[in-house]
Amino acid sequence: MAFKPTDYLPYDFANRRHIGPSPAEMADMLRVVGADSLDALIEETVPRAIRAEAELSFGKALSERQMLNRMRDVAKKNKVLNSLIGMGYHGTVTPPAIQRNILENPAWYTAYTPYQPEISQGRLEALLNYQTMVSDLTGLEVANASLLDEATAAAEAMTMAQRVAKSKAKAFFVDENCHPQNIAVMQTRAAPLGIEVIVGAPEDLDPEAVFGAVFQYPGTYGHVRDFTPQMDALHAAKAVGIVIADPMALVLLKEPGAMGADIAVGSTQRFGVPLGYGGPHAAYMACRDAYKRAMPGRLVGVSIDARGNRAYRLALQTREQHIRREKATSNVCTAQALLAVMASMYAVFHGPDGLRAIAQRIHRKAVRLVHGLEEAGFKVEPEAFFDTVTVEVGPLQQAVLKSAVDEGVNLRPVGTTKVGITLDEAVVPATIEAVWRAFGITRQDNTPGDWRLPGAALRESDILTHPIFHMNRAETEMMRYMRRLADRDLALDRAMIPLGSCTMKLNAAAEMMPISWPEFADLHPFAPVEQAAGYAEMIGDLSAKLCDITGYDAFSMQPNSGAQGEYAGLLTISAYHRANGQGHRNVCLIPMSAHGTNPASAQMVGWKVVPVKSMENGDIDLNDFLEKAQQHADTLAGCMITYPSTHGVFEETVKEVCAITHEHGGQVYIDGANMNAMVGLSRPGDLGGDVSHLNLHKTFAIPHGGGGPGVGPIGVKSHLVPHLPGHPETGGAEGPVSAAPFGSASILAISWAYCLMMGGDGLTQATRVAILNANYIAKRLEGAYDVLYKGPTGRVAHECILDTRPFADSAHITVDDIAKRLVDCGFHAPTMSWPVAGTLMVEPTESETKAELDRFCDAMLAIRAEIDAVEKGDMDAENNPLKNAPHTVEDLVGAWDRPYSREQGCFPPGAFRVDKYWPPVNRVDNAWGDRNLVCICPPMEDYADAAE
Amino acid sequence: MAFKPTDYLPYDFANRRHIGPSPAEMADMLRVVGADSLDALIEETVPRAIRAEAELSFGKALSERQMLNRMRDVAKKNKVLNSLIGMGYHGTVTPPAIQRNILENPAWYTAYTPYQPEISQGRLEALLNYQTMVSDLTGLEVANASLLDEATAAAEAMTMAQRVAKSKAKAFFVDENCHPQNIAVMQTRAAPLGIEVIVGAPEDLDPEAVFGAVFQYPGTYGHVRDFTPQMDALHAAKAVGIVIADPMALVLLKEPGAMGADIAVGSTQRFGVPLGYGGPHAAYMACRDAYKRAMPGRLVGVSIDARGNRAYRLALQTREQHIRREKATSNVCTAQALLAVMASMYAVFHGPDGLRAIAQRIHRKAVRLVHGLEEAGFKVEPEAFFDTVTVEVGPLQQAVLKSAVDEGVNLRPVGTTKVGITLDEAVVPATIEAVWRAFGITRQDNTPGDWRLPGAALRESDILTHPIFHMNRAETEMMRYMRRLADRDLALDRAMIPLGSCTMKLNAAAEMMPISWPEFADLHPFAPVEQAAGYAEMIGDLSAKLCDITGYDAFSMQPNSGAQGEYAGLLTISAYHRANGQGHRNVCLIPMSAHGTNPASAQMVGWKVVPVKSMENGDIDLNDFLEKAQQHADTLAGCMITYPSTHGVFEETVKEVCAITHEHGGQVYIDGANMNAMVGLSRPGDLGGDVSHLNLHKTFAIPHGGGGPGVGPIGVKSHLVPHLPGHPETGGAEGPVSAAPFGSASILAISWAYCLMMGGDGLTQATRVAILNANYIAKRLEGAYDVLYKGPTGRVAHECILDTRPFADSAHITVDDIAKRLVDCGFHAPTMSWPVAGTLMVEPTESETKAELDRFCDAMLAIRAEIDAVEKGDMDAENNPLKNAPHTVEDLVGAWDRPYSREQGCFPPGAFRVDKYWPPVNRVDNAWGDRNLVCICPPMEDYADAAE
Repeated sequence: MAFKPTDYLPYDFANRRHIGPSPAEMADMLRVVGADSLDALIEETVPRAIRAEAELSFGKALSERQMLNRMRDVAKKNKVLNSLIGMGYHGTVTPPAIQRNILENPAWYTAYTPYQPEISQGRLEALLNYQTMVSDLTGLEVANASLLDEATAAAEAMTMAQRVAKSKAKAFFVDENCHPQNIAVMQTRAAPLGIEVIVGAPEDLDPEAVFGAVFQYPGTYGHVRDFTPQMDALHAAKAVGIVIADPMALVLLKEPGAMGADIAVGSTQRFGVPLGYGGPHAAYMACRDAYKRAMPGRLVGVSIDARGNRAYRLALQTREQHIRREKATSNVCTAQALLAVMASMYAVFHGPDGLRAIAQRIHRKAVRLVHGLEEAGFKVEPEAFFDTVTVEVGPLQQAVLKSAVDEGVNLRPVGTTKVGITLDEAVVPATIEAVWRAFGITRQDNTPGDWRLPGAALRESDILTHPIFHMNRAETEMMRYMRRLADRDLALDRAMIPLGSCTMKLNAAAEMMPISWPEFADLHPFAPVEQAAGYAEMIGDLSAKLCDITGYDAFSMQPNSGAQGEYAGLLTISAYHRANGQGHRNVCLIPMSAHGTNPASAQMVGWKVVPVKSMENGDIDLNDFLEKAQQHADTLAGCMITYPSTHGVFEETVKEVCAITHEHGGQVYIDGANMNAMVGLSRPGDLGGDVSHLNLHKTFAIPHGGGGPGVGPIGVKSHLVPHLPGHPETGGAEGPVSAAPFGSASILAISWAYCLMMGGDGLTQATRVAILNANYIAKRLEGAYDVLYKGPTGRVAHECILDTRPFADSAHITVDDIAKRLVDCGFHAPTMSWPVAGTLMVEPTESETKAELDRFCDAMLAIRAEIDAVEKGDMDAENNPLKNAPHTVEDLVGAWDRPYSREQGCFPPGAFRVDKYWPPVNRVDNAWGDRNLVCICPPMEDYADAAE
Repeated sequence: MAFKPTDYLPYDFANRRHIGPSPAEMADMLRVVGADSLDALIEETVPRAIRAEAELSFGKALSERQMLNRMRDVAKKNKVLNSLIGMGYHGTVTPPAIQRNILENPAWYTAYTPYQPEISQGRLEALLNYQTMVSDLTGLEVANASLLDEATAAAEAMTMAQRVAKSKAKAFFVDENCHPQNIAVMQTRAAPLGIEVIVGAPEDLDPEAVFGAVFQYPGTYGHVRDFTPQMDALHAAKAVGIVIADPMALVLLKEPGAMGADIAVGSTQRFGVPLGYGGPHAAYMACRDAYKRAMPGRLVGVSIDARGNRAYRLALQTREQHIRREKATSNVCTAQALLAVMASMYAVFHGPDGLRAIAQRIHRKAVRLVHGLEEAGFKVEPEAFFDTVTVEVGPLQQAVLKSAVDEGVNLRPVGTTKVGITLDEAVVPATIEAVWRAFGITRQDNTPGDWRLPGAALRESDILTHPIFHMNRAETEMMRYMRRLADRDLALDRAMIPLGSCTMKLNAAAEMMPISWPEFADLHPFAPVEQAAGYAEMIGDLSAKLCDITGYDAFSMQPNSGAQGEYAGLLTISAYHRANGQGHRNVCLIPMSAHGTNPASAQMVGWKVVPVKSMENGDIDLNDFLEKAQQHADTLAGCMITYPSTHGVFEETVKEVCAITHEHGGQVYIDGANMNAMVGLSRPGDLGGDVSHLNLHKTFAIPHGGGGPGVGPIGVKSHLVPHLPGHPETGGAEGPVSAAPFGSASILAISWAYCLMMGGDGLTQATRVAILNANYIAKRLEGAYDVLYKGPTGRVAHECILDTRPFADSAHITVDDIAKRLVDCGFHAPTMSWPVAGTLMVEPTESETKAELDRFCDAMLAIRAEIDAVEKGDMDAENNPLKNAPHTVEDLVGAWDRPYSREQGCFPPGAFRVDKYWPPVNRVDNAWGDRNLVCICPPMEDYADAAE
C-alpha cells in the first residue's frame, strides 16, 4: 500500500499555533466579509501600488523544537563569565519564585499597560509597591512606575530639570564620575535641544552657569561622595540637583533626598532582574513633590471606585505624550513595567532586613577583595567605597584583564593603567579568589575587614517601612500574593485585548523560554564581544530578516521602546542633514492623526512640528502636505507618517507623500506601529521611507509585560547607516540613545524565535489573517456601529475605528461607558478616543480565533442594544448597565436597587458563565485620585476607610 | 568602624522560605499554645524514648542558587543521546505551551487529589478528557484516570482479570513479546497471589488453562499481531483477554476493543510527557463496561450539582482501598494525575488530525530507516511493523551498539545477535542517518517507502470524535483553556490545604526547575548507565540522606507511589522470610486505624490481615497486639504500623510493639506517611522498624500534582538489603515492582533539592514547626471542637483530629457540610472521616504562616458559631449556610430565598474579599453520578441540559 500522509502539519507553528482562525473558520469569515478568498480580500484591501515585489525569502519555518534547538546552539556560543565590570550592570540573584510566577507567567507578561484600571489592580499594586520602594530608597516623595534605563532616565531628568529650574542658564553640568553611557546619552539628548553639557569633577561645578547638575552615586570608579554641598549651591542658584543612585547602595548610604537632591534616577536591575546583555531592566525616577507634575513616565496613584473603595490607577495622565503631544514632558510611553514588578517583588521578597543583609554582604566581599589586593601591595582607590574600586596596574592592564578572563571573570579597563572591579550579590568566595589570582595573588581568606563605607555618608533613615515590605516572606505567602495580584488582572491569557494602538498577539510559550536560559540572561552588556558570539549571530540574523521585511538596508537594535525608536530615527536624519551641510533643517510635517509620540519625539530632536491636515476620509490631505512642504522647503527636515495610517487605512498616496518630502529636501520617517498590517505584503523602505522603527513588542511577539518592556529598533536606507546610534563601548560616529549597545538585547530572542518559527510565508499569512480578522469585526458590527475610515473598496486594514460619538447625544452613553461595560463581558476595552475622540479602535490581530472574535462582536452588539434601550427610554438614562459598569461581586452581594436584573448586569453576552472574570473594583474615579494625589502605598489603616 | 553584619540570613531557604511562621509569629504562637519555647513544646510532644540520638549530619544547607548550581553540575554528568531503545519509552515533543502552563504552573502541580469535587472541576475535566481519549483509542467503554506505569497497570489488569473471569483456572498467560519489565512486574505480582504465569508465544496460548492472558501490541520486537483469534478463544473459555497497547500505535492500528479485548493498558508517556529516566508518566487502563466496577484506580465521572448543573467528581469510590481496605480492587491511591493531564492536553493540542500526522510520521521514518538497512543487505524483522524493528547483526551486536553511541544514538541489544530500533516523534532525518552510519551505511535519502503496517490490522474507526479534541488548537485558545481549568480549582498556590492524610507543604519554585532541564527530562530509563552518572550521583546522595534521616541502611527508589512502597516493603519482608526458610509466614498485624492502603498492600503479597484493636486514646492496644502475635506466632510475617499513629499521636509503646513483633518472628513495617512529624527528631529505623516507605510527595516536597505523581521509596535494615526489588535491566535477586529501575526518577530531583536547601538543621526545624502549627490549631479551636487523641501531655503531633460527630445529632450538620462550608471560606477541607468516621483531620504542615493558620481557625470558629445557631434554632435546620454550602455566583445572581443574607452566605470569616475563590459548581451530588455513570466526556448537547 502506498504511503498516504495526512495533509495536516502538526508542527506548523504559524498556521496551527500562532494564527487564530482555522482554515474552516477563515472560510466562514470570508463568507461573512463577502470576499471570495483571502487572496481576494487582500487584493481589495492592500493597493497593488504599495505591494512588495517579492515574497519574503528567509528560509523555511522551524518547528518549536527546531527553533529551541537552534536557539540552544546559538546560546552555547555566548560565554557566561562572572562580570565584575559594574557601570550600572550587576550580577544578581533572581528569586526562583519570582522568575516562575512573574517573568514566566503569562498572567503577568501578556498584560497591557494599565490604562483600564478596573482590570489592572494587580499590576497597579505591584507598581505602587515599586514607587514606594523607590521613594523610600531615594528619600524623595514621588516616584514613577519606571523608565527605560538609567541613561535615558538621566537624560529625562536633565530635560525635566530644565523645565522646572528657575535658573535661566542654558548649560547642564554632568559629573565626570557618571558611567560613560550615562554621559553619552545625556550628550545625545542635550545637543538638539541646545543644552550645553559641561562634564567635570563635582568640585568644579559652577552653579550659576547651569540650570541643573547630575552626579553619579557611587561614582563609576567607586567614590562615595556626599553631594550636599553641591545641592545647596545649586539651590542657591535656583538650579536643580540630580543624583543617579544605585538603589542597592542606597540601602546603606545616605539617600539623595537627605542630600537635598531634587531628582534621583537609577537602575533597579540589580534587584533580581537578569543582566540580559543590557536589558530589559527598569530604571526609576523620583523627585520632590513640588516637581511631580513635570515628571515623565507613568505614575500610579491611589483613588477610589464608584463604591468608595480603594482603587489604583494611572495618575496625572495629562502630562503624557498621548495627551499633550509635542508639549508632553517626554515621549516615554511604554516603560519597563514587567521588570519594575520583578524589582518590586524582589524588595517584597527580601524586605528591608534582607536588602540590608545583601547590601552588607556585597560590601563585605568588596572589603575582603580590597584587603587582599592591598596586602599584596596594590594601590586601590578610593579609600571609602561601597562595591566598586579601581586598581593601579601600570602597563599590565591588558595582562590582568586577560588573566581575569582566563579565571572566568570580566574586569573593567579604566584608562590605560587601571582595572575596575565591582562586586555584586552573585559573587561567591571562589570569585574573589579568582580575581586575586588574576592579580597574581594566591590567597584564601574569609575574614571580614572593617567597613570601608564613608562614615559621614551612612544612611540614617529607615527603608521600606510600609507593611507590604514586612509581610511574611515565606515562599508560600509570596507565591499566593503574586497569584492574587495576577488574578485581579485581565490579560491576554484569558481574553482578547482588541487594542487599536497596540498589536496584542500571541506571545508563544516557546518564544518565551530562551530568555530564562543563563546564556542569554546572565551576560553583561560590556562583556568582551568574543563572549557574546551567540548574541551577535542572533542580532545579525534578526536584522537581516527585518531588512527583508521592511526593505531597509540596516537595523539598529539599540532603541528600547517604540518612542525611543522614533527619537533615534529622527536623530539619524538630523545627523544626515548635518553631514550634508543641511544642519539647519528642522521642520517636521506630521499629520494631525499621528500618535502622540511622533510630535513629542520631533520636539526632542529640536524640530518644529508642522501639522498636516487630514481629509474627511482620514487620509493625509495631499494638497495641504504639498503646501506645507513648499512653505518650509528650505528648512524641511522630514515628515513622520504612519502606514497604514492611524485610521487603519492603506492610503494609496503614500508614495506621493514620500516623493514630495524628498523633493523638498526632507527625509521620510514611517512609523512602524502598524507594521502588523504590512509584513510580507508591503515594505516601508519600498514606499519611500528612509527610516522606520518597528515595535517588536507589537508586531514581533514580544509581550507587553503590563506596560513594557518594548523594543523599537530602527531600520534605515543605506545613506543613513553611518548616522545610526553609536555607543561609547562599541563605537560609532553618533552618540547612543540607550544605555546598552543593543538595548533590551535578551528579549530580541523572542522576536527572533517568532521569525524563525513563522518563516516568510507564515509572517505573510499572519498579516493577511490580521486583515481578515479586522474586516470580519467591521462587517459583523456593520449597522450597529459606523466604521470610520475605510479604503476605497470599503475594506479596513488590520484595525477599525468604531464611532461611538452619536450615543453621547442620543443616550448620554460615552465611550468610557462602553469600555467599562466590555469588562462585564470579559474584555479589555479597545483603544479609547484615539486617534479620534469619542471612538473605539479595534485591532484583533491574527492570533484571535473566530470564536473569540464572535464573543467580542456579540458583546458589542449587545451593548449596542442596551444603548438602543436607553435611547428609546426602555432603560433608565443613568441607572443602567452601561453607566453602572463594570459590575462586581460587591454589587451582587449587596442590595440591588437597579431597574435591571443582577443577571443582566453581570452576565451580558460575551461573559463566560463559569469562568467569568470579576473585576476587583467598580468604576474607578480618576479625577478623585488626581485631586488627592497619593503615589506611594497608603498606610494600612487607610485601607479600612478609603472613601473617608 | 568594625563590620557589624545584620543577623538576617536572606538566603536561608529553610527558615526564610520554606517554613511559614516567622520567628516573631512563632513566639506569638507558642504563647497561645502555652509553651515556653519551641524546644519545650517538642520536649512535651515527642517522647524522649523515641528521639534520635544524633542530629542530622548531612552538611550545610545550600541557598537556592547554590542548589541550582550543584544541580547543573550534576545534570551535566548525564549524557542525553537519542534513545531508540523503545520498550515502552519514547522520545516525544512536549508542547511548550503545555510545559509552561501545566507542568511548570503551581495552579496545576500543587493541587490535591480531587476528592473535593467542588474545588476540582478543572482537573476533573482534564482527567475526563484523558479517560475519553483512552476509551476512544482503545475502543473500550470505560477508562480510569491513570495508573502508575505500564508494567504495574499490566499487573493490575492481571489481578482484575482474576476477579472478573468466570474461568476457574489459576494460571495467567503472558505473551513473550511483552516488554521484559512488564513480564517481570506481572511475575512479581503473581507469585504471592499464587497465580502461575505462563510466558509463551501468542500461538501457544491454551485458553482453557488460564483465567486470562495478556499481549503486547505492538510487541516488544515490533510485531503487530491481530489478537482477535486469541480473544475469541479466551472468551470461549470464559477467560479474560488483555492487550498492552501503545496509544500512538492505536492512532493507526486496530484498537483492542475491536479485537475483542476486555481490558487494555499502556503508557501515555509518548503523548508529550518527558522520559525523565523512567518517570513519572501516566499509564492508562480501559475495560469493557461490564467490568468497570472491578477496575482499580480513580475514575472520574459526570454528575450534577445541587442546582442540577453538570459537575464532575470521582466515581465509584466504594471500590477503592480507603473504603474497602483489604477487599479493595487494588492498593492504588495516588496515580499520575499531572502526567495524565499533560497527555490529555497533548491530545487536545494536536487533535485527531495531529495525532494521525504524528503517528504517520513515526511510521514513515521507521519505513525509511528500514529501507536503508534492507538495501544495505541487513535482515530486518518483522515484515510489518509500526515503529519498532530488530536487525540481525550476528557477532557484531556490541560493535553496532557502540558505534551507535558514538553517533549519539542508543539502540537496544536484543538477544546476542540482534539490535532493536524504535522510532519516535522526536526523530529527525539526521538521527536516521546516524543509525545508518552505526550500521556502516552512508546514505541520505528522504524518499518515503510504502507503508509497512499490516493491512489487516489497520484501524477502521475514528478517534477523538468529541468536540473537545476538535476545539480550535491555536495556542491562544489552548493557553486560555488551560488557564480556565486551572482557575476553577483551589490549589496550594491560593490557600492552605490542611489535609491530615497528606502533607501539603510548599513545593518551592527552585525545587521544580531542574526537572524541566533536558539533562534530567530526556534520559531513557534503559540508557547505558555511564550516560546517567548525574542520576546515579543524585540518587546516591539522596539515598544517603534518607538513610541518615530514617536510620535505615539502604533505600530503593523504585516504588513510584506510597502504596507501591508499602507493597515493595512487604515483598522484601516476604523474600527475607523465604530466604530463611520461613516462607510460610503470612500473617500481618495491622491496627484498626491504619490507612486503607496497608491492608490492601498486605493482601497483595498474599498475607492475611489480622486487625489489632485501638485503645480509647487511639493508641494500639498493646495487650491485643501481644495476644494476636502470640496467637499467630508460627505464621507471623510482620506488622504494619504508622508512626506517629494515624491518630496524630507519638505512641510511647512503639518500641514494645516492634519488640513483640520481632520476638514472634515477624518483621516490622513502619508506614512513613507521617514522617513529617519525625524528620530530624526520631528515626523509624531506631524504633525497631525493619522497613519503611517514605512519601517523597508528602514529606519531601514533591508536589501532589492533583493526584500524582508520588514517589514511595523504601528504606530497609541491612538484613533486608539483598531482598530489595530488582529489575531485569539492572539486576537483583528479586523481581521489580515498577516498570523503571528507579521509578519516577526525574522528580527525585525535587526531593534532593529540598534536602540540599534545607540541610539537616532546616529539616529538623521544619518538623518542629509542623508540630507547633498543629498544636496551635488544636489550641485555637479548643472549646469549639474536641480534639480526639492527644499525647499524655495534651499535645498533638503534626496533625489533629477534630470531632464533628456531635453536630450530627445536635444540628444535623455533617462533616460534609463543614467541609463544603470551608470552601466558602476559601479552603480545601481537611481529611474527612478518616481515620475516624465523622471527624476532620487537620495537618497544617510547617509551610503555612500564622496568618493563614489564623484564617483557617477563624473560619472553623465561625462555622462552629453557625452550628451553634442551628442548634439553638436561630438558624433554619435545613436552609442554612452550612447545608447550602458551597455558595456560588449562581446563588448570588439568582433569586435569594434564604433566611440569611448573601453576605453571610458568601463571605464567612476567612474568605478573602477581593480575592475570593468562587467554586464553579454548587454541592456535587455523588450518588446521582454513580447511579447514572458516565465516565467519558458527555456530548456537547448534553451540556445544555445536564439535569435532564
